[in-house]
Amino acid sequence: MTDFTILLFDGFETLDAMGPAEIIGILPDHFRLRFCSRNGGFVESAQGAKVDTLSFSAVAPGGIILIPGGVGTRALIRDDAYIAAVRSLAQDSQYTLTVCTGAMVLAKTGLLDGREATTNKLLFDMVTSVTQNVRWRRQARWVVDGKYYTSSGVTAGMDMALGFVRDVIGEETAKTTARHIEYIWNGDRESDPFA
Amino acid sequence: MTDFTILLFDGFETLDAMGPAEIIGILPDHFRLRFCSRNGGFVESAQGAKVDTLSFSAVAPGGIILIPGGVGTRALIRDDAYIAAVRSLAQDSQYTLTVCTGAMVLAKTGLLDGREATTNKLLFDMVTSVTQNVRWRRQARWVVDGKYYTSSGVTAGMDMALGFVRDVIGEETAKTTARHIEYIWNGDRESDPFA
Repeated sequence: MTDFTILLFDGFETLDAMGPAEIIGILPDHFRLRFCSRNGGFVESAQGAKVDTLSFSAVAPGGIILIPGGVGTRALIRDDAYIAAVRSLAQDSQYTLTVCTGAMVLAKTGLLDGREATTNKLLFDMVTSVTQNVRWRRQARWVVDGKYYTSSGVTAGMDMALGFVRDVIGEETAKTTARHIEYIWNGDRESDPFA
Repeated sequence: MTDFTILLFDGFETLDAMGPAEIIGILPDHFRLRFCSRNGGFVESAQGAKVDTLSFSAVAPGGIILIPGGVGTRALIRDDAYIAAVRSLAQDSQYTLTVCTGAMVLAKTGLLDGREATTNKLLFDMVTSVTQNVRWRRQARWVVDGKYYTSSGVTAGMDMALGFVRDVIGEETAKTTARHIEYIWNGDRESDPFA
């Protein structure tokens, strides 16, 4: 069983985090779902959901981390200490996933340099202005490059999470999980109706 | 602006609540999103998300309430005081919405008697065994009967929430909201691939 840790912060987009949380959380034989933030305690989503978290120090190396997007990312990318902390967590991870503008935070660490990645399509220019060292994909539901998974906006994170389950566990588990949550899964990462 | 209150309880299904929360929460000009539980304080989802809540006493009449599903509903339907409290909140509401097995809780209040409703398709027989007084629909993404909206499992709640936005605000707002969260909206409540 592998830790799957969602990194929350004030102003995270509710569904960026909670869509993947649902998918990973109903597979407890494979993943231990956790919510962490820099200092632990309550963090409040952009939509006002207050969620309890452990601190970053609870994240063990070798696990999976997911960085959601949200309006709060705009402050995070100007916070050098935060970016350094995320860089360390991502380097130590087995896989790092981002949803929406979470890609902006990961890109700021430099770990996506030279790699392909994608992000929210409505905010594409804002996110990609953070760095030109990433090979930003303007059309993709999600992108996989090495251990880095980056998805387009909000609900694309659910498609990516199911794609991640397919990659690391198997097609049948991904399909069963989608059916369990009665989700019409867009399982083709090249199919991006919002590009 | 109308209160949109999601009634949480221990063992709620994360996405049943957080999918609609995302959709309603990004429309703050129209809705004030809140999370309440019987006694207030922390409640923990079936997937381990601990969310802070106000108590039922914070729910004002005339608003909208949403009851998510989840494994926790099985205890709630045996709790007469809880069902009486939900009955009172639903009676006083302008609209009451349910997702997945949340329909089982609402059905138990008797307020769906004689009305059409739907629920999770994998758990259909369990939910509908609560009462035969409801005209249960075996095939429907969601059902509207008077002020009651009932949806099928988990992500059907997002389709219903967007349908609700269409009904009470308008088609354009519903479409813009779906696009904003890059959601491939199934806007046809009769289209139910999981029936």
